[in-house]
Amino acid sequence: MRKMRAEIIAVGTELLLGQIANTNAQFLSQKLAEIGVGVYFHTVVGDNTERLLQVIRLASGRSDLVIFTGGLGPTQDDLTKETVAGHVGIGLETNSEAMERIEKFFSQRGIVMTKNNRKQALVLSGSHVFSNDFGMAPGMAIRHDSSTFVLLPGPPSEMYPMVENYVMPYLTDLLPDKQVFHSHVLRFYGIGESALEEKLLDLIEKQDNPTIAPYAKEFEVTLRITARAATVEEGETLILPVEKEILSRVGQYMYGMGENSSLHDVLVSELKKRNETIACAESCTGGAIASLITAVPGSSQVFRGGVVCYTNEVKKQLLEVPDSILQTDGAVSEKTAQLLAEHVREKLGATYGISVTGVAGPDPSEGKPVGLVYVGIAAEGMPTVVKELRLAGRRHAIVGRAAKYALFYALQMQKER
Amino acid sequence: MRKMRAEIIAVGTELLLGQIANTNAQFLSQKLAEIGVGVYFHTVVGDNTERLLQVIRLASGRSDLVIFTGGLGPTQDDLTKETVAGHVGIGLETNSEAMERIEKFFSQRGIVMTKNNRKQALVLSGSHVFSNDFGMAPGMAIRHDSSTFVLLPGPPSEMYPMVENYVMPYLTDLLPDKQVFHSHVLRFYGIGESALEEKLLDLIEKQDNPTIAPYAKEFEVTLRITARAATVEEGETLILPVEKEILSRVGQYMYGMGENSSLHDVLVSELKKRNETIACAESCTGGAIASLITAVPGSSQVFRGGVVCYTNEVKKQLLEVPDSILQTDGAVSEKTAQLLAEHVREKLGATYGISVTGVAGPDPSEGKPVGLVYVGIAAEGMPTVVKELRLAGRRHAIVGRAAKYALFYALQMQKER
Repeated sequence: MRKMRAEIIAVGTELLLGQIANTNAQFLSQKLAEIGVGVYFHTVVGDNTERLLQVIRLASGRSDLVIFTGGLGPTQDDLTKETVAGHVGIGLETNSEAMERIEKFFSQRGIVMTKNNRKQALVLSGSHVFSNDFGMAPGMAIRHDSSTFVLLPGPPSEMYPMVENYVMPYLTDLLPDKQVFHSHVLRFYGIGESALEEKLLDLIEKQDNPTIAPYAKEFEVTLRITARAATVEEGETLILPVEKEILSRVGQYMYGMGENSSLHDVLVSELKKRNETIACAESCTGGAIASLITAVPGSSQVFRGGVVCYTNEVKKQLLEVPDSILQTDGAVSEKTAQLLAEHVREKLGATYGISVTGVAGPDPSEGKPVGLVYVGIAAEGMPTVVKELRLAGRRHAIVGRAAKYALFYALQMQKER
Repeated sequence: MRKMRAEIIAVGTELLLGQIANTNAQFLSQKLAEIGVGVYFHTVVGDNTERLLQVIRLASGRSDLVIFTGGLGPTQDDLTKETVAGHVGIGLETNSEAMERIEKFFSQRGIVMTKNNRKQALVLSGSHVFSNDFGMAPGMAIRHDSSTFVLLPGPPSEMYPMVENYVMPYLTDLLPDKQVFHSHVLRFYGIGESALEEKLLDLIEKQDNPTIAPYAKEFEVTLRITARAATVEEGETLILPVEKEILSRVGQYMYGMGENSSLHDVLVSELKKRNETIACAESCTGGAIASLITAVPGSSQVFRGGVVCYTNEVKKQLLEVPDSILQTDGAVSEKTAQLLAEHVREKLGATYGISVTGVAGPDPSEGKPVGLVYVGIAAEGMPTVVKELRLAGRRHAIVGRAAKYALFYALQMQKER
């Protein structure tokens, strides 16, 4: 049997007006790539029966799997399942589980249910139904001729978990050979995508199973190693030697594993494990480091607090950087970074103190160039380390990169402590 | 002549793999909506001649305007203009201005130009060429039968300015009646989309020219009023009475105008104008307010700095909140918010001190519910104001909303001062 060919159809006039981006298609494409299903087209069409029907006809003629998002809601505008029903030539029936869920939603909130909400419990007769654990309209799948149609709700908060929990197992079952796609996702910092690729070029070029795919996102590089195998265990066996070889070359840049991992998540969880705390003094990052750390639920256990010492007065007053240092070395200097890290650590009684001072631009400062950044890491019982960075990009990128470097260096320091 | 029908085709396998979202289609849809051109389809297709040709044929049969993004680069994979040339039945020619720009790019950087870069200077013979001010591959437009094809580079940093500066004037010229679409964008905070809509429902329902479109984004509501008219002045005349009526109803929630406006931009620019300064004490927002303010270039003129007082010790030590208040009222209280705002203002010598303390979740704190937030605004020579908020949503949303409320209240206080 030939490889499965898929396409994704998003239904919604709000997409054609540019009110939202079609991130649903991106999410589904990632998920399908993970199980080796090739996506050949994305289409967006408005809430219009005639044009939707035109798109359905085209798709069913060229794709084995057609996934729809949107148009399952309660209003007149929502017509995806009605139009697919018309194309396939079957009717709609009420799904009792979905109906119960909808009735419960309204009764629990003490709101009278309007009649149009019943429409959400309708599914294609004889279809495989996917429960909506975070909303009202269920998803569904139906096979027709040689194609499989999958209909999913539009809101990402409903669609993403439905796909993860119900649709992916259903699709994996449809694959011609019952293969498993098993991945390891390695997260790197402090190395660019092209530098990483260069160090791994021979591995990437001869890749087959597992495959190795680097990609850059939010100033970081991620590497996905994917094996196809009969079982997860077999996939693991294929991945491990390749991963070991990769880490022998670029292991010093790896900070964590998993798609949803992040420098701040890893740092907070390591601090918790070791019963340590952290504090930060931020000049050019202006609160970005504190924001990242406090975005992690439960960070209050390990984060003491921070000072956004944007002006020299605050550096002097709250963090006791001597005026003489600010005058001779300057606010953007190794010495200032060192003192900021040490003083914020001592003042807030933390295990680690991290500091960032630099020139985020758009204009140079103290005669120092845009992109020059010093990161200081002070740790209890260890000599303070200051790193000098020359960062490229605009203000937003310099701040984002500098904040992540600070988290990365704190993790490195932690390993040495 | 009937209304122009448009569609957008994005070319690139990276989109089908889900590595990026098709934000280009979103941007172009917004731009086309502004000039009253209806977009009926978005399509994404990979770097494959046969499938791209299939998409081009379909599009040229049903749309007056077909806009392509991507596939104009130097590599073998880039084949948009070659494929359109094949469909239209014309050749490619070197555009000398683009060629000069490409040669200059390499000579200035002292890099030897590889041969494939010359490919980027090729344009469809006889096409209207759009300069690429931020990259190498120019854009182009060509008319064929009843359709107009517009080819644009994929990178947003190149495509967006090309569209704003060259493509929009070109397209406006193509419109059957030489109308101008003139918009005012009003930015609101502190009111939800449905509440705003309700207050303006009669205006929205009877809208025709100008049209009124509310939309929600990043916890804010934006209202776009668009008039079509023969001239900008005439459009302005149509908009002003409607805008006046809108502001008489919800003016207290408006903080600024323009698509690219933001609470932090407006606040920084107002502070600059009035030669005032600001400082912040953040507990549950964890640095989000400082990050927003310092994201504005030139904010160092008005931002003194901030304290992320995540723990009670930091509230006591750096901002002198008495232990007795923390024990009796608690860290999340009106009194603590008041003292944090006043003390951070005094300590950092700012005109305004803003503070936020609350429960961001996921768990309640001090027996207080998730979403309870106090915002304090202290201003030189004025009594301190503390607002109590009950915010919905998860941790990320509570932090984002609370930070924006703080900026909004600071702007309100500024008006009264």
